Formats: sequence, structure tokens, C-alpha cells
Amino acid sequence: MAIPFNQRLETICREKNNSLCIGLDIDPDKFSSGADTSLSGMESFGKDVIDATIDFCPVYKPNFAFFERFGSQGFALLERLVSHINGRAIVIADAKRGDIGNTSRQYATAILDGMGCDAITISPYMGRDAIQPFIENPEKGVFVLAVTSNQSASEIQEHGNQSNPLYKKVIQIAQELNTGENIGLVVGATKTEVMEEIRELSNGMPWLIPGVGTQGGDLETALRISHKNGIGIINVSRGILYAGDGSLNDVIQSAKNYTEKIRSIVWNPVNC
Amino acid sequence: MAIPFNQRLETICREKNNSLCIGLDIDPDKFSSGADTSLSGMESFGKDVIDATIDFCPVYKPNFAFFERFGSQGFALLERLVSHINGRAIVIADAKRGDIGNTSRQYATAILDGMGCDAITISPYMGRDAIQPFIENPEKGVFVLAVTSNQSASEIQEHGNQSNPLYKKVIQIAQELNTGENIGLVVGATKTEVMEEIRELSNGMPWLIPGVGTQGGDLETALRISHKNGIGIINVSRGILYAGDGSLNDVIQSAKNYTEKIRSIVWNPVNC
Repeated sequence: MAIPFNQRLETICREKNNSLCIGLDIDPDKFSSGADTSLSGMESFGKDVIDATIDFCPVYKPNFAFFERFGSQGFALLERLVSHINGRAIVIADAKRGDIGNTSRQYATAILDGMGCDAITISPYMGRDAIQPFIENPEKGVFVLAVTSNQSASEIQEHGNQSNPLYKKVIQIAQELNTGENIGLVVGATKTEVMEEIRELSNGMPWLIPGVGTQGGDLETALRISHKNGIGIINVSRGILYAGDGSLNDVIQSAKNYTEKIRSIVWNPVNC
Repeated sequence: MAIPFNQRLETICREKNNSLCIGLDIDPDKFSSGADTSLSGMESFGKDVIDATIDFCPVYKPNFAFFERFGSQGFALLERLVSHINGRAIVIADAKRGDIGNTSRQYATAILDGMGCDAITISPYMGRDAIQPFIENPEKGVFVLAVTSNQSASEIQEHGNQSNPLYKKVIQIAQELNTGENIGLVVGATKTEVMEEIRELSNGMPWLIPGVGTQGGDLETALRISHKNGIGIINVSRGILYAGDGSLNDVIQSAKNYTEKIRSIVWNPVNC
């Protein structure tokens, strides 16, 4: 019998005693000087980061923009990196798709079946029929944008009156659709003031939490609240990939530091 | 001096006496029996449709999902089709992107600079900083999703009280950002009841109007209202690409029929 995505996610986090997600925003403009900035250099860097962290890191999140930037060749590189992970971790496609049903179905085929990602981030502006085609297979999941970590997010996401902001409506729709236990929410780490309320509303659903690190979100608060009833996946992208002098050693050290911090807050506090 | 996108769009529509947009949702599953359904067959079909219609069709809109479905090779095919259009028409990338500034910038580089599309559709759920990186070059444009043609759109887009639904907030933001005259709105053809109001709010901005044809939207109403103060680009995808028996002749005939209908309503009513 198929194991629902949310359960698969929780199992691998328990196995690795960690809920870190390394955001694969691979950007050669940020490579240390002298590094190989070609697509082949990006591929080696990505594979090295994955191989050096996969024993303790349960989730990777490639950001599609950083690959599409290089056109079809970047897309092929993304395919190779997802294949390289090869089931050793959960892969969340950070693609923020969402379209009419007919089109969402094509994206689901492309990203979940074709490329083999485990889950995808979804923008809910077009309503529930934009989400449905992505959740038909319960083993694959979605993370629906609820509250995001960027500066101007609130002008849309809090639209409505104070007791009924848009993000609550989005969470309600996500809950209603979550009969296959394969829906989670994106909850930005900068939004601590609404987290308790969102945790109550999103009973048991996993959160994908961006905004820690460069964007200044509060890792500890986000993690403690999300784990009251479910799990919180802490995404760190630039804070790991471009840590220190950009050497692989500094990248690994940063991933270990985040892991130990996350473990000390909500998992078993052992060192990497 | 750079000519703003909205002006470029209007100029080519005037030159071709038409505001039809052919949606390139190329789907080999819908090809007539015996047709070549390989990527090479898709490429020939796409190029044949473009070449047979470009003298009278001012805008093409490739739907990224239908290319991403075939992974990096599909993405490469999309690049070749955009190159094939080669400035003979406006190309709107139907990609519905929208992310934090840092990521939106990568998408803008990929789709507007790299692939050479003229404009892109944008989902506004993350607020104005998701839109800004796409509009920095006034020659390139965006179409922001306002009201879409799908069934469950209203549960999000009309959120808020009746006098202040979310889509009005989105239109207000689009207006505020439109200082470079390179922003338009996506207004679904099924949403006739709110079009007069949206036309007043979106003073002069072009509309991209999906939902005519398969989705049953009202072409004439959408076109008359949008042209009261601006122009309306009527997108037809399946209704053209898979018209009649799916032969190129039937495709061309359908594109001509739509063109003549559009011309008879708001342009100079001459036959193709």
C-alpha cells in the first residue's frame, strides 16, 4: 500500500534525526574566486554538497529558477542532480507552480513523475483546482504557500479583515484537500507572530519553513511551534551553500551547525 | 529610447489589425491519429502553426507546462520555438512565476533575457517584490493574474468583503508598479460580471484574456469591455491547435475564424 507523502517525510526526518532542508539555489556568481563556474562546475559543486551532507540531511530543495536561468541545459543539470539524490533524501521542487487543472496536470507529470521529485511548492492564487492534479498520487506531496518570508507578502496574504486574512482561507482549503495526507504549508520563519494560530489551523500538516539565515527568520521559534503538532522543515539555502569562504569544508560545517542546532531544539541532541 | 512593452504590444496589434493570441499548448496526446508525436513532430507542428498564422497573428503564448513535461528536451524545444518566432510577433511566456526578489530575478533572466520572451505571466500571491524584478526593463512586460477563468478561482481571488475583493488589491498594486508602462492583467473571459469594474480600475492596461473556446468564456463581451480603455488580447489554445480534424488546414482556418471575429468586434473588419 502506498505510504502517504507526509508520513514518508516524517519517517526520513526521524531516521536522520533532523529536519534540515538544504536549498539548492546554486549560483555560480557566488562561487569563491577561481572556482569552476561552468555548468559542469555547478554540477560537481551540487553533487559534492549532496554527497557530503546526505547522511544527516533528510530534505533537499532545488530552486528551479537557478537552473532555468541556464535554459534547457540548466534544466538537464537539475534532472541529473535529482537523479543523483536517487531516493536517499526527500526532494522538494521549489517551483511555485499553479495553473488551471489541465496545465497543473502537465506540471505534475513533468516534475513529480518525469523528474522524480517527491513534492512541489504551489502558489494558491488560482484556487483548489490548481492544487488537485499535484496530489492525486498520495506518495507525492505539495507545500502550499501560506505565509511567505518576503517583505511585501503581507499585502496579499493578509488581505481581508483581521479575523479572516487570506492565508487562513488558503490553510482551510489545504486542510480540506489533505485527505491523502500529502499536503504541507510554506510558513516563512519571519512570521513568528502568526505561527501559533497557523499551527492550530494546520493540525498535523508539515511546514516548509524558508527565511532562516539571510532573511533573518527565527529558527528556534519556528521549529518549536511547528513541532507542537507536526514537523517543521527548516530550509537554508545561501546560509549553507555560500557559508564562510565558499569551500566545501565551510559548506559542510554550516550544514552540520544548522543540524546540531535543529537537533538541540526538537530532535535528539547529538552531534553530526 | 526604449519603447515600453505595452506600446510595443499595441503597435503590433494595430499593424496586424488583430489581438488574437495563439496559445502554444502543444500536446501530442491530442494530435490526429498517425501524426508524429515525437518531440521532432511537436517542433514541426509548432513551427508550421506559427509560420501559417504569423502574418495575421500578433501574439503567441507558449504554455511552459506542456514543454517542461518533456524535461530538458522539452525546454530546448521551447527555446527553439521562441527563436523561430524571432521578433515577428510578441511572445508571452505563460509560466505563472512569482517568488522572492532574489529568485524572481533568476526567472526574469531565464525567460526574458535568456529565452528572449517579451513578457511573462505572474502569480501575485507573494506580493509586489515578486513582480518587481520582471519589470525593470520597460521593453519587457508582465501580465499579473487578476481574475482567472477556472472554476475555483473565486474562492481566493474574491476573498475579502464584497467591496474589497483580493483581485482589486492586485489590480491596485499592478497600477502602482506600472510606471514603466509594461504591466498588463490576466482577466478570464468567463468573468464578464466584473469586467466593467476591472476596466475602470485598470486604466489603459492591456488585458490577456484566457478562457475563450474550451472554457466557454464570452469573447465579444471581453473584447468590447477591454477595448474601452486599452486593448484585450484574446488567447485561444485548444480551440485553435486541435480544431476540426487536427490537420494544419483546420488549425489555420480556426485561427482565421477567430481573427475575423475579433476584427469584426474591435478592429478593422477585413477578412484574412
